[in-house]
Amino acid sequence: MSMPKHVVIRDVAPRDGFQSWPEFVPTDKKIEIIEAIRAAGVGEIEITSFVNPKAVPQMRDAAELMKTVQHGQGCIYAALVPNPKGAQLAIEAGADKLCVVISATDVHNQANVRRTVSESLSALDDIFSLAGKKSIPVIGGIGVAFGCPFQGDVPPEDVIKIARAYIENGAESIMFADTTGMATPPRVTRLVESFKQQFTDTKLGLHFHNNRGTAMANLYAALMAGADIFDTALGGIGGCPNVPDAAGNLPTADVVYMLEDMGIETGVDLEAVIEAALLMEKILGQKLPGQVMKSGPREPERAAKVCGTH
Amino acid sequence: MSMPKHVVIRDVAPRDGFQSWPEFVPTDKKIEIIEAIRAAGVGEIEITSFVNPKAVPQMRDAAELMKTVQHGQGCIYAALVPNPKGAQLAIEAGADKLCVVISATDVHNQANVRRTVSESLSALDDIFSLAGKKSIPVIGGIGVAFGCPFQGDVPPEDVIKIARAYIENGAESIMFADTTGMATPPRVTRLVESFKQQFTDTKLGLHFHNNRGTAMANLYAALMAGADIFDTALGGIGGCPNVPDAAGNLPTADVVYMLEDMGIETGVDLEAVIEAALLMEKILGQKLPGQVMKSGPREPERAAKVCGTH
Repeated sequence: MSMPKHVVIRDVAPRDGFQSWPEFVPTDKKIEIIEAIRAAGVGEIEITSFVNPKAVPQMRDAAELMKTVQHGQGCIYAALVPNPKGAQLAIEAGADKLCVVISATDVHNQANVRRTVSESLSALDDIFSLAGKKSIPVIGGIGVAFGCPFQGDVPPEDVIKIARAYIENGAESIMFADTTGMATPPRVTRLVESFKQQFTDTKLGLHFHNNRGTAMANLYAALMAGADIFDTALGGIGGCPNVPDAAGNLPTADVVYMLEDMGIETGVDLEAVIEAALLMEKILGQKLPGQVMKSGPREPERAAKVCGTH
Repeated sequence: MSMPKHVVIRDVAPRDGFQSWPEFVPTDKKIEIIEAIRAAGVGEIEITSFVNPKAVPQMRDAAELMKTVQHGQGCIYAALVPNPKGAQLAIEAGADKLCVVISATDVHNQANVRRTVSESLSALDDIFSLAGKKSIPVIGGIGVAFGCPFQGDVPPEDVIKIARAYIENGAESIMFADTTGMATPPRVTRLVESFKQQFTDTKLGLHFHNNRGTAMANLYAALMAGADIFDTALGGIGGCPNVPDAAGNLPTADVVYMLEDMGIETGVDLEAVIEAALLMEKILGQKLPGQVMKSGPREPERAAKVCGTH
């Protein structure tokens, strides 16, 4: 076991949560939530994505949002970009970091950005050049890394191949995304260990969805295999607009709670991130799946509020 | 890593789920659900508890239920019993197995059964004598084994001490319960390994609640430490009547899905247990927290129904 002493929490709620929220979340409300996440000590927030506003109208305020948030307060404001055009717009709007995503299968990448994996890979040069000129770090994200809803199993080599292309282009870190919650712990262990053996100097992040209830077990497996960056979302928001209950990212407070109890530092104030989640729940007007935001931390006086006789 | 090749799934939904359900679930509906769980291949179901009907009116049909279900179909119908009187009633009603529960802290045991731990321990002799006369196996359950909502941390020695008393009395297995979801993986690893070192011949089960989002990670940690019996509940039902969203047992389908994907046999048919969960949801008229019952198994054609663009 080579568990890290400190991990980086990247909150992706404003991007992965709001992109699929049934209604557009007003920009000022997004800023209020982003500010609450930052104030809780989260070091990086994926606040938006620069995608086609016709395809994802919830992200239509990407440029305005990125320009309005107050940069330089110790929190990195990242943007997801699917292509060079998105990268250009994100850089112009002042993004601190980019996260590129390529799906590990042609069929999913086609569905997502209408390109084959090879076509997306050949656009990397442009994206990294644009970012490089402004010294903006780029995360190399790989979607459906643990299974594809169209193809099924994804050979680890296909994922590693994309990771290698990112690293050769100068990616600051790699992010494996379990886009539709198809990972289980042994699949995670296998891919993370394979990556760590081949790329000893590149940091590795994981992005888990809870479609099948395995997300926290997957995170634990990734942690034991040496990963030290985790995407989470305030309140466990995220997923699919058509199946609201079915998915969701790992709730930030649940992950912070577990890691801190394990003696792993996150830099995040648990009470503050619970408050931020409750604020977001109020703003959105809907119950969110986060558990620690309901049960409270592990202190006896808080825990006693939740009964349990057997 | 000493992961088992086969694990036993004990579905506790009819006991742990229905005991806290806001309304009494009619006996015939309970039987319909129990039958669906059995037909899915679950080898053991905790169908009721023989407790004071004034304290837990949802279990007031315990004797009738235990007498009415059809025994001898390859599924063990167990009953939770808090004391010798409960054991007597359960045995008279034809329970195939008993599960005794003693909390690991005096304060929780007092709140639960109005006895100190020592007082509950001294009643074990009577319970095991009653069961022994009819050759009925007894599970030694230990509540708040990973943390107590009143006391906080629970010294592992206090848990092991109760386990030893059970084993000396002839318990067929030991069950550590995380009654209010206070466990995290390292706490699980520590206690399971400690138990395994001291009691090499006794089977160990785990009962996790998801109050803080860690239940599946805890199960994975327990599995790696060599535990091979897991309590789960159809649909992830369970928890506290006053905080309906806050708790819940591990959903049976989610656990079966994850274990089967890991190559660990459960004997349970995943599709059938999903159908059983959907049946229960229909009977109870409320959405349940299970994820695989919403997203389906890992097959591409099913998974593709759940979208996820990034």
